[in-house]
Amino acid sequence: MNILIKNCNLISMSEKRERYEENVDVYISNGKVKELGKNIKKDENVKIINAEDKICMPGLINTHAHLSMSIFRETLDGYSLQDWLTEKIWPMEDKLTNEDIYYASLLSCIEMISTGTTFANDHYFMTESTIKAALDSGMRLQLTRTVNDVAGLGETRIKELEELIAKYNHKYDNITLNVGIHGLYTTKQETVKRLIDIAKKNNLPVHMHFCENEKETLDIKKAYNVDSPVEVLKKYFTETHNILAHVVKVTDEEIEDLRTLDISVAHCPVSNLRLGCGIAKIQKMKDKGINIGIGTDGQGSGSNLDLFEAMKFTGLLQKGEFENPKNMESYEILKMATVNGAKALGLEESLGKIEEGMLADIILLDLNTETTIPNRKYIF
Amino acid sequence: MNILIKNCNLISMSEKRERYEENVDVYISNGKVKELGKNIKKDENVKIINAEDKICMPGLINTHAHLSMSIFRETLDGYSLQDWLTEKIWPMEDKLTNEDIYYASLLSCIEMISTGTTFANDHYFMTESTIKAALDSGMRLQLTRTVNDVAGLGETRIKELEELIAKYNHKYDNITLNVGIHGLYTTKQETVKRLIDIAKKNNLPVHMHFCENEKETLDIKKAYNVDSPVEVLKKYFTETHNILAHVVKVTDEEIEDLRTLDISVAHCPVSNLRLGCGIAKIQKMKDKGINIGIGTDGQGSGSNLDLFEAMKFTGLLQKGEFENPKNMESYEILKMATVNGAKALGLEESLGKIEEGMLADIILLDLNTETTIPNRKYIF
Repeated sequence: MNILIKNCNLISMSEKRERYEENVDVYISNGKVKELGKNIKKDENVKIINAEDKICMPGLINTHAHLSMSIFRETLDGYSLQDWLTEKIWPMEDKLTNEDIYYASLLSCIEMISTGTTFANDHYFMTESTIKAALDSGMRLQLTRTVNDVAGLGETRIKELEELIAKYNHKYDNITLNVGIHGLYTTKQETVKRLIDIAKKNNLPVHMHFCENEKETLDIKKAYNVDSPVEVLKKYFTETHNILAHVVKVTDEEIEDLRTLDISVAHCPVSNLRLGCGIAKIQKMKDKGINIGIGTDGQGSGSNLDLFEAMKFTGLLQKGEFENPKNMESYEILKMATVNGAKALGLEESLGKIEEGMLADIILLDLNTETTIPNRKYIF
Repeated sequence: MNILIKNCNLISMSEKRERYEENVDVYISNGKVKELGKNIKKDENVKIINAEDKICMPGLINTHAHLSMSIFRETLDGYSLQDWLTEKIWPMEDKLTNEDIYYASLLSCIEMISTGTTFANDHYFMTESTIKAALDSGMRLQLTRTVNDVAGLGETRIKELEELIAKYNHKYDNITLNVGIHGLYTTKQETVKRLIDIAKKNNLPVHMHFCENEKETLDIKKAYNVDSPVEVLKKYFTETHNILAHVVKVTDEEIEDLRTLDISVAHCPVSNLRLGCGIAKIQKMKDKGINIGIGTDGQGSGSNLDLFEAMKFTGLLQKGEFENPKNMESYEILKMATVNGAKALGLEESLGKIEEGMLADIILLDLNTETTIPNRKYIF
């Protein structure tokens, strides 16, 4: 299908263009941006969208989510991370069927489409059912079979991950894969080594929870007999690109160390607050040059998959917590949810910006609502 | 008009009822709740609303807002409170006309109605134009003519406040008034004393910004030559009910002192973060028995007047900042935005709960959306 978006207010996120442009036309053909400019005319069969009162921008990229957890929405009030997992979530997860996972994932896809997210990084199991939801809804997903050694099932889970990779790697345009490790505190050293080998062999990123709260950080130190969880990364995670979710409880020295590795941080502010984990030092990590994407986590802890809400929390927390209103310029937050997200997931060549040749993962935002009038384009 | 809400899912906020009840009918006549129960039947002329898939609850109460500031939405990025006021807001405010105030206030009324707020506490000037917006939209407002001594205009402003009270006190059902003091750092001792007298004489609450950020707290100490801003309250504010907006920068000892006064705190979490003021110790104040309401502040610093968003920030900040997921139980946050708000504004006898005889300021929330499925009524 060919689409011509007429007269939009463009936020392309491309460093080759102005931050904000008015009256731009975007011509899309076969899912890619073919032409960008003024007064584009097409004679052939084309769907025209009048976008005079719309912002046109890249679809948002959610760097850390658990799509199936829509089924656990609002099961949480007053639990810490570890109590919530062991008392509530893990026992319920044991009962999930492939059908549950499919419908829960489909609901999440609907939620993301309705809130402007076009690409998400999923971390769960029974992954084929989530892939089916992506194919049925059109969502772009990166997925994994998350592995840990809980209940002595590491071996089984590694096998499922390998089968997933064999079956789905490079199979569908909107499906990519990575290697999911639940966390260092739930996964043995031997298992971690094998997973890193699988990632290297298949040239896939690694996706792992890391230092989500104080207890996790302490548990890693104990389990691996190290002074810092980053030591484990420096030992095993040096030849892979690693997407680390949360990264709340790290010291300034550990942030210095993290810079030396190929990592992206998936910042999940709402979930981190809700579980009482704390507020990640995102401004500091950003200033040190670490690539930061934004995530929602699953709805069990994050309530929803709304990245606009997560962007708002990302900016406001860094301003408020560190009492500096100059922290987190709005445009930087947009970059985190688009360009940086694409980089985190290894797809920055084709996603995260609106440029000729890029994939047309594009959203339109209405400027005529009671909370967007007046709009002063102040962030540009 | 008579209205019969059928089969709703009721959150009445009444301590005489269950927290959550299914299949309740609510009969409203002449703007008041006349009957609450199962299977209410009315033969006369009545508008029936089927609320089977709806939550029915009291309209939210915004305890601190500046309705006219919708016109300044998104003028702020990267300013501290004082720089924003002196460099941006005050010069622009000098140019506002009555027509600006009317349309800006009307836009705010539309925004509040669309996000479930039925009553707001406004703090501004050219107040008659905001009253006109309230009358035209049906919003319930408490208003004032805010006074300070900036530009040597204290005297003029007091006169405008007195005229406002003479003309509008007890004139309309949906309009109440209070005595607005901008802040102790902008208002002289002599002016404060006169305003307190006006409040006492007319039996009105006082509405004032208080300790919004570190600089304000220091400025008050200097201007009044005191060790703590609370000393000023203890000297002048002992015979009035006082609505204090923000209260971010107070010590634990000052919280102890605040308990001894008749105050309500209007917590504005989004604005406080955005201006880099910090995070108010709401859980601690609540534990000490201080009445806490929620506010949005104006759209210049708070972006919007959405109290559902403000409730979310209220809960999550206290959990995250103090790393305790048990802080701020959801039902307590609902109380802040309803019952406590009514108490803050001196109208707890008629507002904030759904009970027979109370004003029918009621909202219905759709349970069938992509972010409310599944719903487990977990907060009850």
